[in-house]
Amino acid sequence: SKLSQQQVDKTNDSVLLLETNLDDATGQQLSLTIKKALDLGAKDAWAEPIIMKKGRPAYKLCLLTAPEQQDFFVKFLFSNTPAIGLRIQLMHREIMERKIEQVQTVYGKVGIKKLSYHGVSKVSIEHDDIVKQSQKTKESSEKIRLAVLQEIENKGE
Amino acid sequence: SKLSQQQVDKTNDSVLLLETNLDDATGQQLSLTIKKALDLGAKDAWAEPIIMKKGRPAYKLCLLTAPEQQDFFVKFLFSNTPAIGLRIQLMHREIMERKIEQVQTVYGKVGIKKLSYHGVSKVSIEHDDIVKQSQKTKESSEKIRLAVLQEIENKGE
Amino acid sequence: SKLSQQQVDKTNDSVLLLETNLDDATGQQLSLTIKKALDLGAKDAWAEPIIMKKGRPAYKLCLLTAPEQQDFFVKFLFSNTPAIGLRIQLMHREIMERKIEQVQTVYGKVGIKKLSYHGVSKVSIEHDDIVKQSQKTKESSEKIRLAVLQEIENKGE
Amino acid sequence: SKLSQQQVDKTNDSVLLLETNLDDATGQQLSLTIKKALDLGAKDAWAEPIIMKKGRPAYKLCLLTAPEQQDFFVKFLFSNTPAIGLRIQLMHREIMERKIEQVQTVYGKVGIKKLSYHGVSKVSIEHDDIVKQSQKTKESSEKIRLAVLQEIENKGE
Amino acid sequence: SKLSQQQVDKTNDSVLLLETNLDDATGQQLSLTIKKALDLGAKDAWAEPIIMKKGRPAYKLCLLTAPEQQDFFVKFLFSNTPAIGLRIQLMHREIMERKIEQVQTVYGKVGIKKLSYHGVSKVSIEHDDIVKQSQKTKESSEKIRLAVLQEIENKGE
Amino acid sequence: SKLSQQQVDKTNDSVLLLETNLDDATGQQLSLTIKKALDLGAKDAWAEPIIMKKGRPAYKLCLLTAPEQQDFFVKFLFSNTPAIGLRIQLMHREIMERKIEQVQTVYGKVGIKKLSYHGVSKVSIEHDDIVKQSQKTKESSEKIRLAVLQEIENKGE
Ligand code: NI
Ligand code: NI
Ligand code: NI
Ligand code: NI
Ligand code: NI
Ligand code: NI
Ligand code: NI
Ligand code: NI
Ligand code: NI
Ligand code: NI
Ligand code: NI
Ligand code: NI
Repeated sequence: SKLSQQQVDKTNDSVLLLETNLDDATGQQLSLTIKKALDLGAKDAWAEPIIMKKGRPAYKLCLLTAPEQQDFFVKFLFSNTPAIGLRIQLMHREIMERKIEQVQTVYGKVGIKKLSYHGVSKVSIEHDDIVKQSQKTKESSEKIRLAVLQEIENKGE
Repeated sequence: SKLSQQQVDKTNDSVLLLETNLDDATGQQLSLTIKKALDLGAKDAWAEPIIMKKGRPAYKLCLLTAPEQQDFFVKFLFSNTPAIGLRIQLMHREIMERKIEQVQTVYGKVGIKKLSYHGVSKVSIEHDDIVKQSQKTKESSEKIRLAVLQEIENKGE
Repeated sequence: SKLSQQQVDKTNDSVLLLETNLDDATGQQLSLTIKKALDLGAKDAWAEPIIMKKGRPAYKLCLLTAPEQQDFFVKFLFSNTPAIGLRIQLMHREIMERKIEQVQTVYGKVGIKKLSYHGVSKVSIEHDDIVKQSQKTKESSEKIRLAVLQEIENKGE
Repeated sequence: SKLSQQQVDKTNDSVLLLETNLDDATGQQLSLTIKKALDLGAKDAWAEPIIMKKGRPAYKLCLLTAPEQQDFFVKFLFSNTPAIGLRIQLMHREIMERKIEQVQTVYGKVGIKKLSYHGVSKVSIEHDDIVKQSQKTKESSEKIRLAVLQEIENKGE
Repeated sequence: SKLSQQQVDKTNDSVLLLETNLDDATGQQLSLTIKKALDLGAKDAWAEPIIMKKGRPAYKLCLLTAPEQQDFFVKFLFSNTPAIGLRIQLMHREIMERKIEQVQTVYGKVGIKKLSYHGVSKVSIEHDDIVKQSQKTKESSEKIRLAVLQEIENKGE
Repeated sequence: SKLSQQQVDKTNDSVLLLETNLDDATGQQLSLTIKKALDLGAKDAWAEPIIMKKGRPAYKLCLLTAPEQQDFFVKFLFSNTPAIGLRIQLMHREIMERKIEQVQTVYGKVGIKKLSYHGVSKVSIEHDDIVKQSQKTKESSEKIRLAVLQEIENKGE
């Protein structure tokens, strides 16, 4: 989610879940809509396989947006899919505080997030950086991930 | 959804989502319950594959009803499935205004819905009519759909 | 499956599995194709949710046919779906021998199948008959199923 | 669900649904987390297949807890999964009143629940007891289930 | 599939299906592996949600390759996933002959494929071209698709 | 899979895939059957969500067995599920050679498998051992996994 790309200091917020069941959209349309929604600033977007009335194999399309984006994304979904109705819920969200850092390994720099929430703390390694350094150095992802973890431990995480 | 079979002038309403996780119902029971619920006036009904505790392959059964139908459909689900508990949520729904029309093509009459919502407008062609005319004329659905779209464009959509 | 509607004396046969991954068909198309295929004599037909390339939510459409129906159903699928390629496998099938009987209960007649296979034997109650008698008598399916089972046991199963 | 293991006199309560979309957890982690959550007192726990952004095959992990367990299970999920954010909803639940009883059959004792809700009543047979007696007596589950149902009917359920 | 990007004159060939059930890979790994496999020349690649032993939410990873690519892609899967075993099947494939053409519309050029198979013929419009022209002209995909279909019909498809 | 619990010297073998589509089994039955099959020596067992005819939410049950176990597991499935027909395929399997070892860490002993296949080599850590030591030492799985990886690297992997 977009959640993962930024510094976050608070531990909760509110989000809107917009969802619609689609038995008249193709997979091509669904994946294009998910991509567009994220490009336009939706917090998250996904699809769930469902079985609709008359035994129709279908997907439920789900969008997570900021409450103030409701109007924009309702119109977006009505314009980009065959949906004629959308269910909307306001949801509470608990989130971990995060601090973004860079770790220097022998395989290159890799971003990490130091995460904490009311006494719980953990580290999340940037997946895309692992993939990038793996392609550059021809080393396995596993090896690079290990190097990052060792580096973090050495620094006394 | 039932939403699609009628003239609608408003652009939002409220609906109830009733859901229950079932690892002790068969697929035969689930599809019968979905069909019965729609026949009895539920606004929508569907099933989602889930993996329950103890690794049980299962389905979540979901019903969308009007708020005043809660009592009726709670009893319906308790009577027609092995469910012993139901989760219930009130959901806001944004819906497109719709006007139902008939389009005359060389392949016969086909119903359409003219949909609009705060400046967004689109047309939805009645799937069942396409299927019916396709069976009657032995023409492909694609061809009939195209004829309808051309007719709409000619009339100045 | 069609397997279930007839008397069967042998315990194995061969069937063809035709399958195709579709990210450009709607759920409406898929369910119509499944229904048509069964009406035209396919032995079984179903859909499986899959995730295709470029992250597309999609369905794999599967048809089970007799080996001699290959040509017919390959053309059927090319005509009724956007598929441009089909994977085909010949599969061995082990099946239970079956004898169809009618059981008379206080709730009306219900069909059963007496099934056997190399020493294994069981009874299968006709689901559609249970549903029919349940609608006619307003008794629960469970009660009618129980009555059928008792009747079978009394007759010395 | 935990719902099924106890005597219940009321017909509704409130529960929390905690959910998070995970494209960076393995199935091993997910099933361990579901098991742990139930051992620690969650009311229910399950996973739903979803397709996340960038076309990632993923699972939505769902936990049902008592409202007062929120803090505990939020920390639990942040500690046991890679989740960095959780969506939380308060849900209303309608539940059937239940009375737990033992039924004595020729295959041994089997627990049942007598369920009722505003005039609807039904009986649920303890699945685990059926399995246990089936293993002990080498009789099929179907036969034991039938014996229980007959016993209940005889007692004038 | 790669099938769709090229001129094809024959109507059948043979392909290998490589598959493995993974409860120890993350969604990030799975989608990266699917993308890499296609970049390296696999004919198709996808994932199917499954429920593995011990109730583990998992995915089956499937690769379609040319028979002569077996060695390459077996090593690829062992190197890029935690798989320690792969199931392999040789599958027959029926495919439609195709001729690739360009159609000139008022919204720009769009590629089409003229498909035929033993008397069945149809046209497939290049989805990516529709998306590209839709982004350039700000017209809906539906409108552009319609223009292409009309153009084809005018030319006497 | 059972594959993972033993020393293996060869790099390929043959297995049978037994599968059946079930719309008349409950999730409880399916998970019990999967567990029983593995206890009785099946090589693997899993379920896939599918949508059967008449729009029935269902599961495909899959068993992987040795070719010589066919008779045993066909009877097993006919006895333990409502299946009246089973599809059977002989599948080729490529597998990695494996050597099982124990690694001593500060958190206790953990089993690993050294895997190799035609020049590809990797190490797989015993998931259950990680879980066990994590429960005993109250350390996170991640930390123990890291310790094992470091130990392997130190010994010259
Ligand atoms: Ni907080
Ligand atoms: Ni409005
Ligand atoms: Ni509103
Ligand atoms: Ni869902
Ligand atoms: Ni035989
Ligand atoms: Ni045979
Ligand atoms: Ni009440
Ligand atoms: Ni209430
Ligand atoms: Ni041919
Ligand atoms: Ni070899
Ligand atoms: Ni080989
Ligand atoms: Ni599948």
